[in-house]
Amino acid sequence: MNPLNEPPPVALPETGSPLYERLADHYRRVIAAGTLAPGDRMPSVRALMSQHRVSLSTAIQVFRSLEDAGWLQARPRAGYFVRRAPASRLANVAEPEIPSLAEPARYVGLHERISRVIERAQAFPDALNLGGATADAMLYPTQRLQALASRILRRRPTLLTEVGEDGGAIELRQAVAKRALSSGVSVAPDDVLVTSGGVEAVNLALRAVAQPGDTIAVESPAFFGLLQILESLGLRALEIPTSPTTGLSLEALDIASTACPDLKALVVVPNLQNPLGCVMPDARKAELVQLCARRGVALIEDEPYRELVESSEPARPLKAWDRDGGVIYCASLNKVLAPGMRLGWMASGRWQARVRLLKFAQTRHNESLAQLVAAEFIGSGAYDRHLHQLREKLRTQREASADAIGRYFPAGTRLSLPPGGLLLWVALPEGASSDALFEAALPHGIRLAPGSIFSNSDRFRSFIRLSCPAPFDYRIDTALRQLGTLAAELGRSA
Amino acid sequence: MNPLNEPPPVALPETGSPLYERLADHYRRVIAAGTLAPGDRMPSVRALMSQHRVSLSTAIQVFRSLEDAGWLQARPRAGYFVRRAPASRLANVAEPEIPSLAEPARYVGLHERISRVIERAQAFPDALNLGGATADAMLYPTQRLQALASRILRRRPTLLTEVGEDGGAIELRQAVAKRALSSGVSVAPDDVLVTSGGVEAVNLALRAVAQPGDTIAVESPAFFGLLQILESLGLRALEIPTSPTTGLSLEALDIASTACPDLKALVVVPNLQNPLGCVMPDARKAELVQLCARRGVALIEDEPYRELVESSEPARPLKAWDRDGGVIYCASLNKVLAPGMRLGWMASGRWQARVRLLKFAQTRHNESLAQLVAAEFIGSGAYDRHLHQLREKLRTQREASADAIGRYFPAGTRLSLPPGGLLLWVALPEGASSDALFEAALPHGIRLAPGSIFSNSDRFRSFIRLSCPAPFDYRIDTALRQLGTLAAELGRSA
Ligand SMILES: Cc1ncc(COP(=O)(O)O)c(C=O)c1O
Ligand SMILES: Cc1ncc(COP(=O)(O)O)c(C=O)c1O
Repeated sequence: MNPLNEPPPVALPETGSPLYERLADHYRRVIAAGTLAPGDRMPSVRALMSQHRVSLSTAIQVFRSLEDAGWLQARPRAGYFVRRAPASRLANVAEPEIPSLAEPARYVGLHERISRVIERAQAFPDALNLGGATADAMLYPTQRLQALASRILRRRPTLLTEVGEDGGAIELRQAVAKRALSSGVSVAPDDVLVTSGGVEAVNLALRAVAQPGDTIAVESPAFFGLLQILESLGLRALEIPTSPTTGLSLEALDIASTACPDLKALVVVPNLQNPLGCVMPDARKAELVQLCARRGVALIEDEPYRELVESSEPARPLKAWDRDGGVIYCASLNKVLAPGMRLGWMASGRWQARVRLLKFAQTRHNESLAQLVAAEFIGSGAYDRHLHQLREKLRTQREASADAIGRYFPAGTRLSLPPGGLLLWVALPEGASSDALFEAALPHGIRLAPGSIFSNSDRFRSFIRLSCPAPFDYRIDTALRQLGTLAAELGRSA
Repeated sequence: MNPLNEPPPVALPETGSPLYERLADHYRRVIAAGTLAPGDRMPSVRALMSQHRVSLSTAIQVFRSLEDAGWLQARPRAGYFVRRAPASRLANVAEPEIPSLAEPARYVGLHERISRVIERAQAFPDALNLGGATADAMLYPTQRLQALASRILRRRPTLLTEVGEDGGAIELRQAVAKRALSSGVSVAPDDVLVTSGGVEAVNLALRAVAQPGDTIAVESPAFFGLLQILESLGLRALEIPTSPTTGLSLEALDIASTACPDLKALVVVPNLQNPLGCVMPDARKAELVQLCARRGVALIEDEPYRELVESSEPARPLKAWDRDGGVIYCASLNKVLAPGMRLGWMASGRWQARVRLLKFAQTRHNESLAQLVAAEFIGSGAYDRHLHQLREKLRTQREASADAIGRYFPAGTRLSLPPGGLLLWVALPEGASSDALFEAALPHGIRLAPGSIFSNSDRFRSFIRLSCPAPFDYRIDTALRQLGTLAAELGRSA
C-alpha cells in the first residue's frame, strides 16, 4: 500500500520557504521515519501533482531537490526510488540549540592545541589516515595532469625560470572565471586572484576586512584551519550554531550581529561544510547574503568542496546572490582537482584592491607551471568527466563507511550522511570522549579528527570526523570495526 | 715608478678592524685615487710583506679581500692587476650622514605609493625593464630544470595529486641544509622551512617576532618590498643609514636601539644589499650579530643575493655568527636559480615553532614538484657551475652598463660598482628628480626604479636603481643613452 495515495496526512509547515521545499521536506521526514524504505518506488510526478495540487514544475523541483540531497535515485525509464541508505539505522546528528551563543573569545592557545593534535597524528605516518580532508591521489587525474605538465614545459621552456604574472596566470584566471559563470557567478578574469590554496585566500580576505582584535563570526563547529588562522591573526571569533542539515543558523547570526554591532565578517562554508557536510538550501543562501549586506558584515565564502556536491545543477555559491561586492569568494583546487598543486583563487568584491596589495606583499604571484596545467585541464571537457567520477566514487566510499559505522559502532552513535564530499561527522554516544578515542586509535594505526579541534568550546567533545578518502576495502572495514570496539570500551569505562 | 716601493705614506687608521682589512682599505683608496690605474700590476705578496711588515697570511688576506670586492683581478702566473673599472670616471655614491635618524613612522600610504609605481610601469609591458631585480630567463639553467621536472614527474607520478610534506619536501630541506654548511651555517633539515619565496619568509619572520604597532629597524634605502610588508603588517619602521660600500651603519643602529628600547627586530640584507649593492665586511657582520644579541633585537637576515657575491669563498651570512638562535635566516632561490619556481627557505632559530605554526596557518606547505626539481639541481655539481657562469655574466653586464652610464649620463652622476648581482644604484646630479625621470622614460619604452620607493623619506629622490638583467646589447646601450639625455634635460629644467 502506498501511503501517499491518501491526502497529505500533515499540513505543510507555514514557513517562508518555497512550496517545493516544504513538500520535499515532508518527503524527507516520510523517508527518515521509514514509511518509505530504501528501494521503494516513489510516487510518480503525476501522483504528486494531483495529490498535493501542485504544478508540474513544482513536482519536478521536489524530485530534483530530493535527488540532489541524496534521498532519491533516478532509474532510467523506471522512475525515482528511495536510495539504499545503509546508515539509516543511525539517527541523524541532533540540531544545535540556538541560544547557546558563545562569548567572542580570542583563541589564545587553540592554535597550539590543534597543532599538537596534528603533530601527534603525524607521529604515526604509517597509520590509516581517516583524519584528513583530502582524497587519495588515485581519485584525481594523476596521469592526465602529469602528461599535461610535461607537454606545457616543452611548449613553454622558460616557465620555471622567468617571473610569473602578477595576480596569477591569465590562462587560469580565464578558465576559472568562465567556469564560475555556470554556478551563477559572473567575474572577469581581472577580478580573479590566484592564491596558494584556499587557506591563503581566507587569510587574505580576513586581513583585508579586519584588524587584530576585531570579532569574526564562524560556524560552530568550524574547520580547525580557520580557527588557527583567526588565532594567528589576533582575531576574536564568535561561534554561531550550525545545523548538520541546513548549515549556519540565520536566526543565531541575526541575534549575534545585533548583540555585537562591530562584527567585521562572517566566514562560512555553504556547500559541504567541514566537518558537518551540510549544504545550505538556496533560499537560505540568498537570505544570508541579504542579512550580511544589511548589517554591513563582510561575507567570506570558503568553498573548497562546492564541486563535490551531488546535484543535477552545480551547487550555487553565496557569491551568486552578491549585489554590492560584499562577498569575498574563496575557492580551492586542492580537494577537487589536485592536492599537490596547492592552488586556490578568490574574487574579492569591493576589497579587491586591498587583497591584491596584501597578496603581493605576502607571497607575490604563484609558481606558473601548476597554474597552466590546471587551466588547461579545467578548460577541457575532462574536468567535468573527472568531477562526475570523483563524486560517484566518493558517494560509494561514504556509504560503505557509514554502513560499517552502523555495523560496528555502539548503540546511540549518530551520523548524518552528507550529499557529497568525503567527510562523515559522527556523534558518539553521550559522554564519550573523542580525544580519548583519538589517542586510543593511534597505537592501532588509525588517525581520526577529534571534535575538540573544531571549536573553542567543549560542545563537540564526543564527536569525531571520519573521512572516506579511498575505495572501501578490508583495511578500512577492519579499522572502523576497531574504532567501534574502542568507542564501546571507552563508553563502558566512562 | 711604483709608488708603493716607498714606506707607507699614511699610517693605517686605528680602528677596531683587523690589520688585513685596514691594509685593504688603504689600497682601495690608492686605487680610487687613481694612483694605481686599471690594468696596473699590484705589488707582489712579498713586496707587501716587507713594506708593511706583515705576515704572509695577512698579505694574502689583503689580496683576497681586494679581489673579492672586485678591485683586483688575478691573472694566472702573472700576479694581481687592478681591474679595468670602466665606471671609475664616476665618483662613488656618497656615504650617508649618521645622525640623520628618521622618526619611526608607520608607513601609511607608502604601500599604495609603491604599488602605483609598479602598476604604472606594468602599463608599459613592452618596455625594456631596467627596473626589476631578476635576471632574464636565459641566464638560468632553463633546459636542465625543464628536463629534471619531466623526469621527476615520470618517477613520482602522484606528485601533483597527493598532499605534500608539511614544512617542505625533505629532499629540498636536506639539499639546502647541506649547502649552508659551506657558508658557515649549521642547520639540520628539520630546522629548514620551505616558503613561497623570500618575501613569504620575511613576512613570517616579522609576524613571529612582532605585533602590529611594534617598531622594526630597516636599512635606508631598503628593498621596497620590505617597506610594503611592514605597512601591510601594521609595523612601524625606523630607517637606519646604510653605507653604499660597507652596509648598515652599526653606529646608527647602536644609537637607535638605545633611543628606542622596544625595538623588536632589524631586517638586513648583508650581502649585495638591494638597492645599494654593498656587502658588509665579515668583521662588521660579527659585530652586528653581537650588538643585536646584546640589545635583545631579533635579527632577520634577508639573503636573496648571497650566492651572487663575487669572491673566492662563499660570502658568509650573519647566521654564521649566530650563537643563541637570535638570527632568522631567510633565503630565496628566485634570483639565483629559477625565478619561476617561487621558492625560498628559512631557518628561524628560537622562533622556529612559532614560524612553523604561522606558515601552516598562512599557506600550508609549498607545491612539491618545484621543490624536488630544485633539490636535485642544488644537490648536483651543476649548481656551482651555474652560479659561476651566472656571476661571470652578471659582472660583464654590470660593467658594460656602468660604462655606458659613465659615457651618457650628465656630469655629477655617481655610481658605486657592486661586487656582484645585477643592480646599479645611481645618484643623479644634485637636484634631479628620479620620479620625473621614471615618468619621462616610460613613453620611451624604458622602465627603471625611482629612489623614492626605497624609503619613507625623500632622501633618495635623486637616485635611481638600474638593473642589468641581460647581456649588454644595442638596445640597452640605446636605452641608457636615452636615459642620460633625459636626465640632462630634467637637470637643466630643474
Ligand atoms: C573548509 C575548508 N577551507 C579551506 C581548506 C583549505 O584548503 P586548501 O588546502 O586549498 O588551502 C580546507 C581544507 O581542509 C577546508 O576544509
Ligand atoms: C632584498 C630582497 N628581499 C627579498 C626579495 C624577494 O624575494 P622573492 O622573490 O624570493 O620573494 C627581493 C626581491 O627583489 C629582494 O630584493
